[in-house]
Formats: sequence, structure tokens, C-alpha cells
Amino acid sequence: MVKVLSFALLSLATAISAVSAQLDRPGQFSRLGACPELGCVFPPDRTNFLAGAKFDVRVEVHGEDKVQPDTKYSLSIRKLSKTDKKNTNKDNKSSKPVDFSKFTKVQADAPESWHFSYFKDAAAYWKNQDGDKNASTTVNVASSAWRNIQLREPGTYEVLLKYQDKTTDEKKVSKLIWNVNAAPKKRKAKNVILFIGDGMTTAMITAARLISKPHISGMYQKRMNMDQFPVLGHVMTHSVDSLITDSANSASAYNTGHKSTSSALGVYADSSPNPFDDPKQELLAQLMRRRSKKNGGKGGVGIVTTAEVQDATPAAVYSHTRQRNEKATIVDQMIHGKNPVVADVILGGGGQYFHSKKGGKSLNGTDYYEAYSKERGYKTVFDRDELLNYKGKGPLLGVFNSGNLDVWLDRNVYKGNLNKTGADPRGSGLPALNQPNLDDMVIKGLEILDKRYRKEGWFMMAEAASVDKMMHPLDYDRALADLLELDSTIGKTKEWLKRMKLDKDTLVITTADHGHSFDVYGSVDTQYFNSFSDSEELEKKNSIGTYENSGWPSYVDADGDGFPDEWNVRYTLAAGTAGFPTHREDFQVNVNGARVPAVAQGNSHHHYPVHVADPRDAPHGINKPGTMSVRENVGVHSLQDVPLFASGPGSELFAGVQDNTEVFHKIAQVLGLGDQK
Amino acid sequence: MVKVLSFALLSLATAISAVSAQLDRPGQFSRLGACPELGCVFPPDRTNFLAGAKFDVRVEVHGEDKVQPDTKYSLSIRKLSKTDKKNTNKDNKSSKPVDFSKFTKVQADAPESWHFSYFKDAAAYWKNQDGDKNASTTVNVASSAWRNIQLREPGTYEVLLKYQDKTTDEKKVSKLIWNVNAAPKKRKAKNVILFIGDGMTTAMITAARLISKPHISGMYQKRMNMDQFPVLGHVMTHSVDSLITDSANSASAYNTGHKSTSSALGVYADSSPNPFDDPKQELLAQLMRRRSKKNGGKGGVGIVTTAEVQDATPAAVYSHTRQRNEKATIVDQMIHGKNPVVADVILGGGGQYFHSKKGGKSLNGTDYYEAYSKERGYKTVFDRDELLNYKGKGPLLGVFNSGNLDVWLDRNVYKGNLNKTGADPRGSGLPALNQPNLDDMVIKGLEILDKRYRKEGWFMMAEAASVDKMMHPLDYDRALADLLELDSTIGKTKEWLKRMKLDKDTLVITTADHGHSFDVYGSVDTQYFNSFSDSEELEKKNSIGTYENSGWPSYVDADGDGFPDEWNVRYTLAAGTAGFPTHREDFQVNVNGARVPAVAQGNSHHHYPVHVADPRDAPHGINKPGTMSVRENVGVHSLQDVPLFASGPGSELFAGVQDNTEVFHKIAQVLGLGDQK
Repeated sequence: MVKVLSFALLSLATAISAVSAQLDRPGQFSRLGACPELGCVFPPDRTNFLAGAKFDVRVEVHGEDKVQPDTKYSLSIRKLSKTDKKNTNKDNKSSKPVDFSKFTKVQADAPESWHFSYFKDAAAYWKNQDGDKNASTTVNVASSAWRNIQLREPGTYEVLLKYQDKTTDEKKVSKLIWNVNAAPKKRKAKNVILFIGDGMTTAMITAARLISKPHISGMYQKRMNMDQFPVLGHVMTHSVDSLITDSANSASAYNTGHKSTSSALGVYADSSPNPFDDPKQELLAQLMRRRSKKNGGKGGVGIVTTAEVQDATPAAVYSHTRQRNEKATIVDQMIHGKNPVVADVILGGGGQYFHSKKGGKSLNGTDYYEAYSKERGYKTVFDRDELLNYKGKGPLLGVFNSGNLDVWLDRNVYKGNLNKTGADPRGSGLPALNQPNLDDMVIKGLEILDKRYRKEGWFMMAEAASVDKMMHPLDYDRALADLLELDSTIGKTKEWLKRMKLDKDTLVITTADHGHSFDVYGSVDTQYFNSFSDSEELEKKNSIGTYENSGWPSYVDADGDGFPDEWNVRYTLAAGTAGFPTHREDFQVNVNGARVPAVAQGNSHHHYPVHVADPRDAPHGINKPGTMSVRENVGVHSLQDVPLFASGPGSELFAGVQDNTEVFHKIAQVLGLGDQK
Repeated sequence: MVKVLSFALLSLATAISAVSAQLDRPGQFSRLGACPELGCVFPPDRTNFLAGAKFDVRVEVHGEDKVQPDTKYSLSIRKLSKTDKKNTNKDNKSSKPVDFSKFTKVQADAPESWHFSYFKDAAAYWKNQDGDKNASTTVNVASSAWRNIQLREPGTYEVLLKYQDKTTDEKKVSKLIWNVNAAPKKRKAKNVILFIGDGMTTAMITAARLISKPHISGMYQKRMNMDQFPVLGHVMTHSVDSLITDSANSASAYNTGHKSTSSALGVYADSSPNPFDDPKQELLAQLMRRRSKKNGGKGGVGIVTTAEVQDATPAAVYSHTRQRNEKATIVDQMIHGKNPVVADVILGGGGQYFHSKKGGKSLNGTDYYEAYSKERGYKTVFDRDELLNYKGKGPLLGVFNSGNLDVWLDRNVYKGNLNKTGADPRGSGLPALNQPNLDDMVIKGLEILDKRYRKEGWFMMAEAASVDKMMHPLDYDRALADLLELDSTIGKTKEWLKRMKLDKDTLVITTADHGHSFDVYGSVDTQYFNSFSDSEELEKKNSIGTYENSGWPSYVDADGDGFPDEWNVRYTLAAGTAGFPTHREDFQVNVNGARVPAVAQGNSHHHYPVHVADPRDAPHGINKPGTMSVRENVGVHSLQDVPLFASGPGSELFAGVQDNTEVFHKIAQVLGLGDQK
């Protein structure tokens, strides 16, 4: 039997007794994502906090069109007693609400006001897209923010926002429940490695296993490294305000314990124009940096990704902004932000935001390689050899591409594609021909963390980013190869941990942030497929075998490196997704680089881009008219819970189904983060 | 940490050291599914057996076209010692192979011969479909079968088939490894309930949760009953001979520990024309019926399904045939087969195979209601009231529909649809208006099993069949409603177990047999969708919101019964699959009954059926040209591993990733089945 954390049960039980008017409202468009009423508070209703973790609070009161918002709103809070908790729906008088500033001993910033506009529904939105400037609705906002609050006493709190609805002159009360989870008494593990397969689902793991592992009589004779984790969980990935998440707000849930809105990192998205004033939450890495002595003191932080180091998933470890695209500022936040994380290891792509040479976009033209080095003592490396030859203690900044690292298939099989871009991370304009693999970066990162924080322990986030980045353009071969690279890295990491005698001290988690609707429904005889002319689409489709005629694909890993030896094979997977743009499909590997399935149509009568199949992609493929708005040119994220594999101390906490915010709280338990009265 | 069964590790480790020439061969068509060479043995290479479980062996030697097969083949076997196991690739002489009949003390049946034909690949197959009678290849077969063998000594066996390849006159040797797993010393649980959500995936559970459970700020305030199981596993579902399974051979893996071929139940599919002579395996229910006294003795067996009781998943509990469609014979096997299971409880549909009245198809015109009753003492009930009012000890046969039970949505919401068929299970031609729900059947079945076998314990298989049956025609609302019915039944079952003080004695497993490539990629504003004419397909697609504009759907379960109160709502799920026939999609519930997405085109120039969108289905929907052979008229099964939720004694065995055959071996461990020297 697996022990379930008591805080999770508590918060669920409390909540069930008080399902109230703040249920998420149906609809695609809302005035402001996580703000179901005219007045609202961030963090919103039902938030779970880690005791002592810092956070900001923002109140917004709205008035639509010509109506001004109430500026005389008030915010109060009370801690509920055991009796109160049983009656959260009733107006319980047993303890009195206290003014929020008084209770928290934090004064609000000066009151603010602004306005913004939104669309009431799809009809309004598309009217606007077609040129109707009156289709949007204006909202006038009165707002206050409280910064750097801590709730150090575990328990359940009731937060009341009182305001007037100026349209009806009614008095309104928004009642929120906040749960503060106890900080752990003692850490369970010294170290945590969080592997993220961005966009990775169970169906992708199944497909990756099929193309890489030997099987006899339908039974695998080798399995994935992930398959060998003793504990399995599922993670629910919804945003705070929508059923489908993006990588920013889901990574943010793992790093803060708070859900958010698409594109937001370490903050709730408010409606103000400034992308840096949104209410923040303390990050896992920040908590690691100020951990109590009792639990090991300040620990190490490592960040490894095959994306740009400013991309959503790595940025969620160290930055705060509503706009994940503010990448130049994100580079700055690592060393200059408030309580900057200054990670011990930063390895990945994204050189363009560090320099201002050719193609460079660094903040204010600053040379951030120099800034990191001079101000914080970083060593810098720029290719695989420099990385592998580095034997120091760090801190280490390794940037290997101006953008995302090229994917495994181009780094290792179709290497000629690397010559097609001037991706040198320092802006020379030359191609980046010597990029490391994920395992190179992870093992080097672990060595440095071990040298710097063997005693205190460390946290590493390592991301296989291009599972997602290649699923988007429906390039399944490239996505699955990067998934296999992640799996191979996990195997090497486990070997390293064992060799270093760190396996008993280290919790290893492998999970994803969201899915794509990818699955395999049969096999394709590409020789038969290719024997027909483009007009014989019906016959081409007869090359797809299902059930017993799916048989087996032709991929073989004879050299045992964990990847198919040959990708351009006769019998391939009949794979697809549910949400896709208009494109063509030939089920064959794209040897010339990542797919571009759709392009904007030149002569559309619409005012917005209309995407059609890119004529250069799978030119002899079958036609697949899109299943989404024509504005979309790539596949999109999907709803399904993602798998979580755990091993090592504390892994038992992750068994079964859990919310993505719970993953943060469980890691915090394991690492001994947080502090309480 | 979760303890992993040692047998699983052993068999995997043994196997890795000897990945040999019998790796599954690529291709869609094969001479005979699990027979990679000219000579082959069933059970095939790498089979895992439970000590003492009975099984048949068949040898087939093939010769193609005019070549006759070698009839002088020989079969031998030896048990490998520890030293042998390390060297299974070498020709190890440390123990001598013994003639198979001598070793097993079972004589082979009289030698047989026959011929059959097959297609070498898709090109040959479709040539044949278009009328070319020379496109197939003839195979001449020499064969022997050994029946009712037992291997009671745990360990690894090497099986050698020696024969001559008559085309080349070469001597050939097929070398197989068989692993016999130790029988458990002591059962861990008295009772096991195996819930099967046929075709159910993680993505479907996520979608079902979304439409039925209240959430605030994106966090669920109630969860599915499945979500609350402490142990989670994934199950790999491949067939013995293809990457995609069907319900028969996957259910067969759960009931026998052996993979098989599509449509096969409790047997390996051989190439002979007789669908009842294929090599059998002893069933879990049969093992339960002859369990040793030490482990509780003969236990009870219950079978509950919303499908026909002869459908693949329930039939796999009690029957042996290569052809799941032989439903009349399957009814007969329950009471007249060899070691018939004669289940204590049989509840579901399928009346047409019990009688020979209007629409009846019973074997030889026999009245099987009468036969079950007279020969085996079954009480019979035919509607919900009769079922609920039955207070006896059984055995009980409840048949509530001539075919599959109608689905939850038609039984409970769109009840008028029940009047459309004369589905009375006794053949009166009247509609079946009073069908039970799944929970009615499961709880009644449990009550009877408890009365009959409280001391000895029991095994129940309960299936929500129409998750799959409604995913096939892409009727997602009906599929998800039946998934919710399963979840609600699980909740009621857990309450019943607790009330009866059986929860500590009962392992509950909820899993699936295979998936469909279903997922949700956003939401649809159906009001906006419906505002456009059929020619405005581009605009219709703009009603689909993704990411932050997926927002939340309109389903609400205000009455708390676990199902949405209203299915015909404005904001629905943008859902789809990867493998689908040509059809139209409007994302709205089909109030008039299950969808029929595609129909055969009348005037095709092809010799095989070509399916096009059914003009009556979603007439104002968007067009979705199929992604498979035009011969397919519904969606197909998919590759992805399926989830497994476990709770109760023994549940820890099911954590992590496992093959579907391992599920059988783990249940056998928990129930104390098998016997050994």
C-alpha cells in the first residue's frame, strides 16, 4: 500500500464540503482567465500553499464598458478553526475576518487602475478578426497588490473580497478558501532530478518502445528505462483557467504549486499591461536556495534543456513573468532578478538572447555571457568538446545553439541538416556542428552539482524539449527519437547515481507537462504506398494495415544503442493526432529536416491567416484537411493526463492520480522546503 | 518501494541474454501469425507459464506452393540448469533434450495435414481483392498436437523443433525458451474483481472526469473513483503477432497468461480450418475451479458485461476458440465444454444465442435458457426488476437484451431509442425497455458470489463493454457515459465491499484491454459552429478553441450522480481520433442513437467496399476524409499502453509497466492458483 500525503486528502475533503458559486464557468473566452466574478483575488479560490513559501496577492475589481469599478473594495482573511472548516458554506462567526494588511503585516502597493478589452465569445472574436473594431468589450480595473506575503501557519484560511457591483449597485462578496500545507519536518532525499519529456504521453512512450526494443512473440525482451521505475503516477494538467495547458503554466505548477494561464511563468496572469507586475510565487529553486539549516541549508540548482534555456520549461525554474516570450528579460532575471536563482548549472540553447552580435537579441544589447561570467563567476562553454573537457566546479553556463538545440535525429543521423543554419551560440553566423546530446549535458551537470553540493544536496530539472517541439509540426520520427534520447539519458543517469553511491539519496522523477493527441493505429507498407500516383489516394490508404495486419514495423536496434539503426524503412507506424492543421501525410521520415506541415495561403479573402498544406511537405502524401481553426498551422496540446515515473526516496508519494500542483508539494516534502510557525 | 515479482525479473533477464533469431519479423502479412519460420511450435518462443496450468502444444511444419512439408520433424525438450540459462545462445550439452512425448508423458494426437493460403504483402492482398485469384500463396501443412500438458516444475525449458526445409533440403532447428513461473505458496487475497473498461485509455478517463467532476480554479473538487486507487500500472497490449490487439486476444492474455492472435480466445491460432482445434490454455476461471485445498479449494466465478455474454471479453473467461464469432458454440461451452466453467453468475446481453425463436441463433436450435436451468440449476432473469428482486443463492443467468445491452445514455437519458429495436432477450420481438445498469448487475453478482463462496473466495470479471463499442463509431458521448457508468459502479462496489467487511480480502483491479486513439484538443462553441451553412466549413472550424481559448465546457453534474445533467450543451469537447473512416463531425451529442459514421458507397468501381461519410450522420458537420483503408467503416484500436488501477491485498504487484500476460500471472499469484512439484 502506498501512503498518501495527508495534506492532499485534507484539502480535497475540505473542498468537497464547500463546492460553491466559484465553480469554473463554461465558455471559451472570459474577461480574465481565473477571475469568474467582477471582483477577484489572485491566488484564487482553493489554492494550496506550502507553509512559508512567499507569494504576492493581487485584487482586481472590474467594471465593463462605461461602468467604473468600485475602488472602495476591502480584503480580509481569517484562519478557520476545525469547527469552521466543517461549515465553510455558512456564515460562520466563530472567528473574525481581519483586514488583510493587518493580518499579513504587509501593506498594499499604491492603488492602480487601468483598462483592457476582451471578447465575450468566438462570434465577437472572429468579428474583430474580420475588421469589426466594436466587437470587443472594454473593462475598467481598480487594483491593489500585496507583495512577498508568507503564511507560515498550516491550516485553512478564508479570504473575503467585498466590493460593489457598480452596474447594479449590489454589494458583492467573493469568498475564497486557501489551504496552507505543513512544511515537512525532515527531508526524505538529499537530491531530486526532475526529467521533463515536454509534451510526452503514454502513447508516445509505447510507440518509442516499439521502434527501439526487441520483441519475440509480441513480448519485449528489453524495456525502456522509464518502464523500470517502480512507481507510476498520472498528472492532471489543466490550466487555472482552461482545460488545455501550455508548457509555461504547467512547468510553473511544478515549480510553484500554483496553476496559471498560458504563457505565464511563476505568476498568476493579471489584466494589467505590464508583463512583469503580475502576482508572483516563490519558486522551488528559490526555496532550495533559502532552505533551513535543519533540512540541509542552501542547496544546488541545475537546469538542462535541449530547448533555449529561456524557453518555458527551463525558465519556469528561475523566472517570473506573464509573457514567456520576454526571453531577453528572462536571461537577465537569472542573475539580476529579485532573489535571483543563479543556477549552478545552465545548459541548453538560446544564445541569441545572450549576445547582440549577428541575430542577437540580448536585453539592452548587453553581453550576458560576460555579465554571467564577471558578475557571478560562470564558466562558459559553447560546444560538446568544451563541455566534456570541462573538469571544474563551475558554476557553468553552456550554450550550444543560438536557438533550440537541433534534435537528436539531425544531431546524430541526418547531420547534414546542421549546416543549414548559422546557429553558432556566439553569433558568428557559422553553423553549430558540435552540439552535445542530452546525456552529455545531464551527466556533466550532475558532476558539477555533486562537486558543489554533495553535502547539502541539489535539484536538477532536465528537459527533452523537442518531443513537444517536433510533435507540433507532426514530425513523429523526430519527436520519438528525442523521447528515446530522454530514456537513454535516464538510463545513464541511473548508472551514474549508482556509481557515485547517490541512488539511495536521490529521488528521480520522469514526467511531462502536457500531452499531444498522438497515437498509432496500425502500420504502413510505404513501398505499396509509394507505388501509387498522387491521384490514387484511395489506393494509397490501402497500404495501412490495422489489427492483425498491422503486423510489425521494420525498425531494428541491432547495435543496442537504444535507437533504431535505420529510420527510412519499409514498414512504418500509421500514426496521427486528433487536432491537426490542414496538411499531407506520407508516414515517412523527413530526411531534410523538421516538417513544416502548413503554410499561410497567399490569396485568402479573410483578414486572418488561413493555413493550407505546405506543398513542400509530404508532396505525395494523402490529404488531411485540418480539424481546427485555419489560423492554426501546427498541431496543438491535448487534454490527457500525463504519466509520471518515480524511483528513489519519496517516490511512493507520487503513485496514482494527482494534480500538477501536487507534484510541487510532494517535491517540497521530499526536499524539506518551506518553513512554518 | 514496490516489490516486483521475482518471476518477471527472472524471465526478462534470461531473455535479454538470448535475443535470438526468433525476433518478430517486420511486415503486415505473414504465413501464420506467431510462426516466424517454416517450422513452428505453439506456445511460441519466450512463453511464460504458471506451474501446473494445463496447455496444448501444436507443431506445424510448412511447405509453400508445390513443396510438401517435412513430416519427419521431431520435438524435444529439456529443463535448463542454472549454468545452461546463462548460455542459452550456445549449443550447451550439460543436459540432454528428451523426446517431447516422453518428457511430458503425453502422446501426440494422430498426425494431421491440411493446406491454407495467405498473402505475402499488401500488394498481393489488394490484387486478390480486385479479382486476381493468383495473388495468394498456398501452404501445405504437416502437424501434430499434444493435449493437456502440465509443466509443474518451475524453471526455464528449452524446446527444440527439428525439421527439414524441403525447398532447400536444409536441416532446420527452431529453438524456443519457455519459462515456468512458480505457483504461489499462499494466496494474498480471497477475492479478485477485474473491471475491464473495454477500449478505455487514460485520455478517455481525463475527458470523462472533465465533463462530470466539479472544478474550481482548474482544480478538481471531486475525483473519479478510479483516481483514488492507490496503485497505478500501465499494460502493454500487443498481440502475439501484431502491434495492435483486439478484445479477444487481449482478454485472453488476462485469462491465460498467453498472448494470441486477433479473434482468438484461450488458444493460439493455428492454420487449420477447424476453429475449435487450436492449442488451448487453461483459463483463470478453470484454475479457480480446481484450486488446491491449501489455497481455499474451488472458488466462485462471476461474469458481468454490458455486451453479449458471448462477446470477446466475457467469453475469454470461459471459452476456447480461434473465432470469437462462434457465439452459439461459446454459449454451449460454458456448460458442455471440456472442464466447463459453469460460472456462478452470468449477467449481460446476447439472448439471440440462447434461443431459436424470432431472431434466435442458438446452437442446433437448442433452448439454452432451458439447458442451463435444467442441467446446471441456473435461475434465469430477463429484466432489471427480475434481477433486483432475485434474493436466492443462484447460480444466476441474467440476459437482458438479444444483443449488447443498450448504452447508458440510451438506457437513462435518450430512453426513446430503446423502442427502436425488438431486443427482448427471449425473442418475443418486443423492445427491451427495462435493462439493468452495470452497477445493478455487479452488486447482485457480488451478493450471490458472497453467498455461495464466502469461505473459499471468488473471481469476478465485470466489463463496461461499450466504451469500446461506442468509440468505434466515434460516438464519444456514449463512450464517455459508459466509462462514467463503470466509474460509478466501482464506487458502489467499494462501498459494498466495505459494508460486507470484504475490502481487506478483495483485490480490485480496473484496467482496459486496448485503447483507441481518442483525445481532446480543445473545446467547441456549438452555437457558433451551427450558425454557419454547410459550405462555410472554414468558419465552422473557427468555433474550435485551443489552449487558453479552450476555456471550460458546459457540462455540469449538479445532482451529484456522477454524470452530466445535460449532454446537449453549448460548449463541448473538441475530440477526435487518429485512425478514422471518412465521416463528418459536428461535435454534438447524437440524440437519436449511436452514430454510424460511414456507409459503403453504392457505385464504386472497386471490388471491395469503399466507405464514405454516412449522409445521415452529422449532416452539417465538417468533412473528415478517412486516415485508413476505405474498407474500414469505423475507428480502430490503437497502440498505447492502457492504465491499470489496483487496490486491496496484492495490489502492490501491479505498480509500473507490465505486459498484459503478466496481469494473469499476478492475479494467479494473488488468488493462489497453479500447482507445482
